Amino acid sequence: MSGTLYVVGTGPGGAQQMTPEALQAVSRATEFFGYGPYLDRLDLRPDQRRIASDNREELDRAQAALTRAAAGVDVCVVSGGDPGVFAMAAAVCEAIDAGPSEWRALDLVVTPGVTAMLAVAARIGAPLGHDFCAISLSDNLKPWDVITRRLRLVAEAGLVIALYNPISKARPWQLGAAFDILRSVLPPSTPVIFGRAAGRPDERMQVMSLIEADAGRADMATCVIIGSALTRVIERPGRPDLVYTPRFIAGESK
Amino acid sequence: MSGTLYVVGTGPGGAQQMTPEALQAVSRATEFFGYGPYLDRLDLRPDQRRIASDNREELDRAQAALTRAAAGVDVCVVSGGDPGVFAMAAAVCEAIDAGPSEWRALDLVVTPGVTAMLAVAARIGAPLGHDFCAISLSDNLKPWDVITRRLRLVAEAGLVIALYNPISKARPWQLGAAFDILRSVLPPSTPVIFGRAAGRPDERMQVMSLIEADAGRADMATCVIIGSALTRVIERPGRPDLVYTPRFIAGESK
Repeated sequence: MSGTLYVVGTGPGGAQQMTPEALQAVSRATEFFGYGPYLDRLDLRPDQRRIASDNREELDRAQAALTRAAAGVDVCVVSGGDPGVFAMAAAVCEAIDAGPSEWRALDLVVTPGVTAMLAVAARIGAPLGHDFCAISLSDNLKPWDVITRRLRLVAEAGLVIALYNPISKARPWQLGAAFDILRSVLPPSTPVIFGRAAGRPDERMQVMSLIEADAGRADMATCVIIGSALTRVIERPGRPDLVYTPRFIAGESK
Repeated sequence: MSGTLYVVGTGPGGAQQMTPEALQAVSRATEFFGYGPYLDRLDLRPDQRRIASDNREELDRAQAALTRAAAGVDVCVVSGGDPGVFAMAAAVCEAIDAGPSEWRALDLVVTPGVTAMLAVAARIGAPLGHDFCAISLSDNLKPWDVITRRLRLVAEAGLVIALYNPISKARPWQLGAAFDILRSVLPPSTPVIFGRAAGRPDERMQVMSLIEADAGRADMATCVIIGSALTRVIERPGRPDLVYTPRFIAGESK
């Protein structure tokens, strides 16, 4: 008899930002596959086994988890944030798609979670209050020219843009290049939010205009949100600025 | 002394999909402003007061809640899903922006939640596993020509598209028109997911190709996700199909 494969996200921080549904999945599994720092966010029992792997070995990790589930173990694959956004749920599906047919018969349960852009948005106001998109800036996974074309089109479309994986030691220049592209389309005053570790003790939120936006403010734990031409900043005495995108767009056709 | 204004989302379903952080905000407030069916999802105490309003009176509701918080009451504004995605957090910010200066001094706490597209994606696999966008199809809030232009640009960009507010009695034709636009850009076989009430007892998930997509399958509780040209369907014996978007795009530049 095969086991269940759970795929959960920890949310942006710890247990305070995981749903009861996700916590229940964690309580049911006995083997946990994930990037070490994400596994560290879980409060596991002594009988629950951790199999930590490097952040970039996602397909190998998915295959290892599927192999164990097929052998009868209840397995949990752990992502940060939501497992469906640039994370392990897609890697598990890729592995099933290319793997042995028995993997298609497994019981697969994905539990949704709070993804980074939603956590950052909540801390700062409502920058995602109108149409928006999420784009991974990692050119490990797609050609850089695809990324630049997408940035240009979504900025022309007037969408707010959440950038995941904005920068890393191996990808130091891409975020600055992305800002340059966006400056060619969007007004200089467009608000940019550097939202780091939202909901965690080391949280840091910074807001600046696109013309001032400095890629050096971001690190691997940062989600960068670039507003649209309609995104507004509200200054508050003694409190951080609020950033929001109005729900309305005025037009002649209505 | 003024009160705190909490803005929470119920997630897609009930308490099983709300974070402890959001549930704690609910326990602290004494007056609750929201659309009645969303307030019904909360398990309120006898001392907690409900002020239900129609779904479309968002700005009035935000102003009423801010007025009560300024009067010293701990108030909770309730959205379905995540409050920052086409929901009350933006309405509260709009009200603050246009309101009396004392509203800027209020303690505002927005707690993030699981928004509909993430809940639908989790149930069906990982359709949002790569770059994606969220677009509201409501032309109550923006001109229809803005919506059509956005749909065309994001489809050309290769993003997966989550459509919120796809249809209502007052807006019966827009979803069909949106499918027509997308058919002019995307392959006929592109998977389309009609994800209704994900995580609730009346949940219903349907997958069909873009050429077959029938707007009549959607209602107000549906989030429609349209894949990209790379989105794949995995057939599983005795189980629902999985839909996912691979994390990789092959290219010559890498």
